[in-house]
Amino acid sequence: MKLATYNDGSRDGQLLVVSRDLSLAHYASGIATRMQQLLDDWNFVAPQLEEISQNLNHGKARHAFPFEPQRCMAPLPRAYQWADGSAYINHVELVRKARGAEVPESFYTDPLMYQGGSDDFLGACEGARFVSEAMGIDFEAEIAVVTGDVAMSTDADAALECIRLVMLANDWSLRNLIPAELAKGFGFFQSKPATAFSPVAVTPDELGDAWKKGRLHLTLQTMWNGRKVGQCEAGPEMSFHFGQLIAHVAKTRNLRAGSVIGSGTVSNKDWAKGYSCIAEKRAIEMIESGGEAKTEFMKFGDTVRIEMKGRDGQSIFGAIEQDVLPLHDPDAK
Amino acid sequence: MKLATYNDGSRDGQLLVVSRDLSLAHYASGIATRMQQLLDDWNFVAPQLEEISQNLNHGKARHAFPFEPQRCMAPLPRAYQWADGSAYINHVELVRKARGAEVPESFYTDPLMYQGGSDDFLGACEGARFVSEAMGIDFEAEIAVVTGDVAMSTDADAALECIRLVMLANDWSLRNLIPAELAKGFGFFQSKPATAFSPVAVTPDELGDAWKKGRLHLTLQTMWNGRKVGQCEAGPEMSFHFGQLIAHVAKTRNLRAGSVIGSGTVSNKDWAKGYSCIAEKRAIEMIESGGEAKTEFMKFGDTVRIEMKGRDGQSIFGAIEQDVLPLHDPDAK
Repeated sequence: MKLATYNDGSRDGQLLVVSRDLSLAHYASGIATRMQQLLDDWNFVAPQLEEISQNLNHGKARHAFPFEPQRCMAPLPRAYQWADGSAYINHVELVRKARGAEVPESFYTDPLMYQGGSDDFLGACEGARFVSEAMGIDFEAEIAVVTGDVAMSTDADAALECIRLVMLANDWSLRNLIPAELAKGFGFFQSKPATAFSPVAVTPDELGDAWKKGRLHLTLQTMWNGRKVGQCEAGPEMSFHFGQLIAHVAKTRNLRAGSVIGSGTVSNKDWAKGYSCIAEKRAIEMIESGGEAKTEFMKFGDTVRIEMKGRDGQSIFGAIEQDVLPLHDPDAK
Repeated sequence: MKLATYNDGSRDGQLLVVSRDLSLAHYASGIATRMQQLLDDWNFVAPQLEEISQNLNHGKARHAFPFEPQRCMAPLPRAYQWADGSAYINHVELVRKARGAEVPESFYTDPLMYQGGSDDFLGACEGARFVSEAMGIDFEAEIAVVTGDVAMSTDADAALECIRLVMLANDWSLRNLIPAELAKGFGFFQSKPATAFSPVAVTPDELGDAWKKGRLHLTLQTMWNGRKVGQCEAGPEMSFHFGQLIAHVAKTRNLRAGSVIGSGTVSNKDWAKGYSCIAEKRAIEMIESGGEAKTEFMKFGDTVRIEMKGRDGQSIFGAIEQDVLPLHDPDAK
């Protein structure tokens, strides 16, 4: 089943069922109007939506209409939790190597995660607004899952069973704010502005055998200003699978339905695969030259496009396609 | 106006208006059933609840019933954001001094804040469950506010106008997990389990002139196992007021209605005032003895009570009264 949320002017938008090929959509109204309703009462609501989904896929949904990703909010426009990992250890190794720092041994057994803001997610095609280019604007292409309820102390295998939906994320980062912020010792805050998500979230069964034990074995494509910069394999090099990330969050507390858990920047050891965030490109430049990075971060007017295709070549989640915009339009007023 | 949320078995509970003296309550149903509804549409909903509030306070609410704080969930049982500050710099100074660390100059001008989990808040009288005493179970008595929408880049003065509600918080901390977690560089995560809030949240006007420019000039009382341990003044030594904390969060992103912002542990330079978290008591012991702390963290079966009284001696928010419990009751099954 594939789901999306249309912007209808309300804070939570309108829940949609989307056809497998992303061509058609159908309102879920009458069953659930908001994504959180589905997540709160999954076992009761999901089977009803599944029926719409099957009708849509078989061309039998009488009130279907063409699906327009531009009208989407994030599938869950605001969530009660957003916890993002750094599960591709290659990303951590690269960034640390560039600044001459070691990767502590514990990083290979204990996931790095941070708690992010979840009150104001961005839609896939929504412009991302920033106060200043000097903050070091960077995209981060990731996989994310949405959970049901997870009890405190749930282990990694059991946590896999709590995954309801899978989607893509663009975890915007303000790189030049990070050093000072991490030096304060409390982790990221201002350096992690609002995160964007793919138009569509899908149940794991939609991924077929590309979804294996909490890893998604497909290629994540990233384009920056129309140029392919990343073709990264999301599966094999994910050092911690989603069950492990969820179990990390659940170690000392319950997770409630609708918690969004991110993988961190998808990253491969093979540099030919490219990058899913500019910080990695810069890290490679610094390592190779033994000096400065030459690639600059994003400028106002830049674009980023993040997408993942199935083995049949079809887009699974639709594309995240965002423009980088100044907080206040210079032309406005 | 004073508000609370009764546990009715649903995830968001049932919104109540509570009388000023906390003796009576009245359902808000017909106007709003959940606290988030009020926050989403404050200007429309609040005046209607205000009317119930006035009737209650004048003994004219015909469907009033006795208010029972034991039945309360957190006023906002799950929120889209929980960002907690460390606004009483004395707390930071003490804890750092105990471990021989300096307080960086920037801490006096740039607030320390961390993003916490907001999907599973605890009610005021709900037992707090932990996996193990060895994690170093500690309370943290705080003030918290709930905001309306705050636009990115809002300044501290304007942010003050976005404060809708004030309440008390018990920001449970697992002290023995903190050193390793901070060493990872990503800030708190497992060391900050679910936070509890006072039974009642109040609009700032209920605080009279004790509420001045984002600071609450009253005494926060903390009792541990029935013994008074803290009588801390919450006003004068709050180094950053709530407008400044909100502006810090809003620096690079929008805050959406229902964001909960915490003050951090209320702390006074005068040690005679006692403490609002055990870590401070232990810090003082280490500083005074030049060695080990002798006070231990909480044990299963311990209790904590956090309350604030107005100048008339009446409890403003009701008391947070929690038992420390093991995750799995040894007697269960």
